[in-house]
Amino acid sequence: MQFQVSNELIEQVRHLIQEEGDARLREMLSEIHFADVAEIISELGLSEATYLIKLLDSEKTSEALMELEEDFRERILENLSAKEIAEELEEMDTDDAADVVAELPDDRAEKVIAEIEDEKRAEDIKELLTYDEDTAGGLMAKELVKVKETWTVAGCVREMRRQAENVTRVHSIYVVDKEGKLKGRLSLKDLLTASAKTHISEVYIPNVDYVDVNTEGEEVARIMQKYDLEAIPVVDNEGILMGRVTIDDIVDFIKDEAEKDYQLAAGISQDVEADDNVWELTRARLPWLILGLFGGLGSVFIMQDFEDVMTNPRIRDLFFYTPLIAAMAGNVGVQSSAIIVQGLANNVVKGSLLNRLLKEVSLSLINGSALALLIILFGFIMKYEISFSLTIAAALMSVIIVAALIGTFVPIILDKRGIDPAIATGPFITTSNDIFGIFLFFYIAKLILGF
Amino acid sequence: MQFQVSNELIEQVRHLIQEEGDARLREMLSEIHFADVAEIISELGLSEATYLIKLLDSEKTSEALMELEEDFRERILENLSAKEIAEELEEMDTDDAADVVAELPDDRAEKVIAEIEDEKRAEDIKELLTYDEDTAGGLMAKELVKVKETWTVAGCVREMRRQAENVTRVHSIYVVDKEGKLKGRLSLKDLLTASAKTHISEVYIPNVDYVDVNTEGEEVARIMQKYDLEAIPVVDNEGILMGRVTIDDIVDFIKDEAEKDYQLAAGISQDVEADDNVWELTRARLPWLILGLFGGLGSVFIMQDFEDVMTNPRIRDLFFYTPLIAAMAGNVGVQSSAIIVQGLANNVVKGSLLNRLLKEVSLSLINGSALALLIILFGFIMKYEISFSLTIAAALMSVIIVAALIGTFVPIILDKRGIDPAIATGPFITTSNDIFGIFLFFYIAKLILGF
Repeated sequence: MQFQVSNELIEQVRHLIQEEGDARLREMLSEIHFADVAEIISELGLSEATYLIKLLDSEKTSEALMELEEDFRERILENLSAKEIAEELEEMDTDDAADVVAELPDDRAEKVIAEIEDEKRAEDIKELLTYDEDTAGGLMAKELVKVKETWTVAGCVREMRRQAENVTRVHSIYVVDKEGKLKGRLSLKDLLTASAKTHISEVYIPNVDYVDVNTEGEEVARIMQKYDLEAIPVVDNEGILMGRVTIDDIVDFIKDEAEKDYQLAAGISQDVEADDNVWELTRARLPWLILGLFGGLGSVFIMQDFEDVMTNPRIRDLFFYTPLIAAMAGNVGVQSSAIIVQGLANNVVKGSLLNRLLKEVSLSLINGSALALLIILFGFIMKYEISFSLTIAAALMSVIIVAALIGTFVPIILDKRGIDPAIATGPFITTSNDIFGIFLFFYIAKLILGF
Repeated sequence: MQFQVSNELIEQVRHLIQEEGDARLREMLSEIHFADVAEIISELGLSEATYLIKLLDSEKTSEALMELEEDFRERILENLSAKEIAEELEEMDTDDAADVVAELPDDRAEKVIAEIEDEKRAEDIKELLTYDEDTAGGLMAKELVKVKETWTVAGCVREMRRQAENVTRVHSIYVVDKEGKLKGRLSLKDLLTASAKTHISEVYIPNVDYVDVNTEGEEVARIMQKYDLEAIPVVDNEGILMGRVTIDDIVDFIKDEAEKDYQLAAGISQDVEADDNVWELTRARLPWLILGLFGGLGSVFIMQDFEDVMTNPRIRDLFFYTPLIAAMAGNVGVQSSAIIVQGLANNVVKGSLLNRLLKEVSLSLINGSALALLIILFGFIMKYEISFSLTIAAALMSVIIVAALIGTFVPIILDKRGIDPAIATGPFITTSNDIFGIFLFFYIAKLILGF
């Protein structure tokens, strides 16, 4: 039954915008979910999109605006007056409204806030803007249902009806004392099953999970996932209830974090997308490529020291194996680091460093032996001298062990020093392992073959 | 205020288990959240963990069991009787209960189900087991609050009180007709604000989003994210309401998917964790390393064709550059493919293939020019002949363009053929780009330097 935004529909909308068929457009889009309206808008040009935003009810466009790509939203907002933006903000949840205001240039942000009619809302937005983006304060919304511990269930239901008008989704009812300090929560289930005259203080659940306005987003995500929470209250440093973070904001956060780690592992240093322009993509990709280039030049230096090998036809084939050695060092390093980075993120990297070292070494011995065997087999087929095959096999094995150890311990060390270990998974680990690997390869060959 | 499981606490629990201080253990752990109890259990040995699970109330242990690693849970369950497992299942949501039963050997699963006292629940679990794990049917729980469209608000509240007993969290109230077909939903907000005598048919919201039991998990995740849903009803092919999927199950699903893609990109083919044993890790890692090895041997063959270069001191330094060329080809390929794979997953890869081709080529020209310039500079410092530096620069540029095109189009082609494009991001793309890169490098060198 899922509604699909078709090309015909988009063409029809485009046509109606050109013809200024306002009534027809309003009617047509009134039936459509805001997320689908956002999908339609994202397919339109800037002036068409602006036309639609101005035309439709703020109730619908405010939510659609939040679903758009940030860049496109900013460009649409540039075409709206401060008053028009303020109207959109009136319909948004305060957390979204604050995010939008934060995207505006400072002077324009002030004008927009001045145009918001609801003063309480303007105050709330200004408050939210004071928190750091990636903290509980930056993620929370001011909308919530709160009741005082001294009220009765009946009084509570009356008050909730009033408050619920402004809250899209009631997750939990928070209970506060007369100073506004968080005391606990009330489940809707309890409210449904308690008698009307009961006092809230008798039925509420104390010991509620909460976070501080300054708690980092990552920590909020961890707590909400661990305790399976759909919303978590946020308090200031005196325990006063300030807002709540809901799971949908956290889902986006988890996804963004996962994508960031993935991009770092792939050697992309900024949050870019396939449809960003060439310059943005270059800025994100070139730095890592330059790192790779320097790594490659590093291995040129190493090999120069072994140039004489080329004059010796018996062993000069060693040079054919440098890409293989480098590739294996890189692959093993990426595997080890990816497992550790993910383990660190999920908090499952336990036990002593010595145990982990033993494990990586034994894992490398198993993988290395299998691969060494294949190399020796290959040597037979190619009719290499046995000492030559053994040299390559032994070097490969050592390279794999060293690469696994580098891949394992670099992220652990970075993590201990408070640096995001994800940075160590991609080009960083492959580049350093390439150099180490090639050095080790020639050095071991020299030891065995004695040149 | 977050509660932290300390080493002292774990030691204390361990001590009390040895001393069989049952009353003290029960008292101590009754205050602690099930997620923290799970954390404590995961630090214990198997027999200690089993002891605790048998000792504590099923109400707490059933939820803690669900938080444990699957392997450890299975081993604990092996030590419990069918009756004891059934008691745990009685306290779980049906989706969790079905997951646990699915992990048991077939004959034991039957015995456990036979021991469940609540026949309705046993039926529900059996039904859930019939669905594929990764579909809406496999993800959904049977617990939900449903009301008939013919009831009044007052009757509805009465009935909800009864049903709510079995439902941990009330997300939405689903409205069905007398055959059980899904008609729409009722928000708690509406219920709070409507008068007692109103009929449900007058206040419910039709046009509710839903999925079919056979809808794939990935699609359910996409819909719930797009429309910001916290729960979605699941119907059979006749439209009968069968269950609901909640956002917490989807958060796990999104995380698992992201981790799988990340691992594929890193050359790890199965869902493994840092603390899995050496054999499991080998099974996941060795196949990709063997692929890399064959790739490396492929480049050995290519270079053998250019063996004569080694006898020419003027140009034999070319061999020093093979790891650099291979690394750059690999890095560029991984960058391009990661951006495309993520774009495909987020549905933002739009426009014609020709446009994408032009974009990748111009991006490669920019990155390639910057890197070529660095190579020429390096050549000056090293006092290379200019023709030699130019050869490497030109080859590098060509390799970057080809690598970017391979990295872009392989995932797109796989996606069009219904194969998970994430498989093309890691060792697969680096290995094929290594070979192409080295071949191209020597071929271009031959063209320019004429050997």
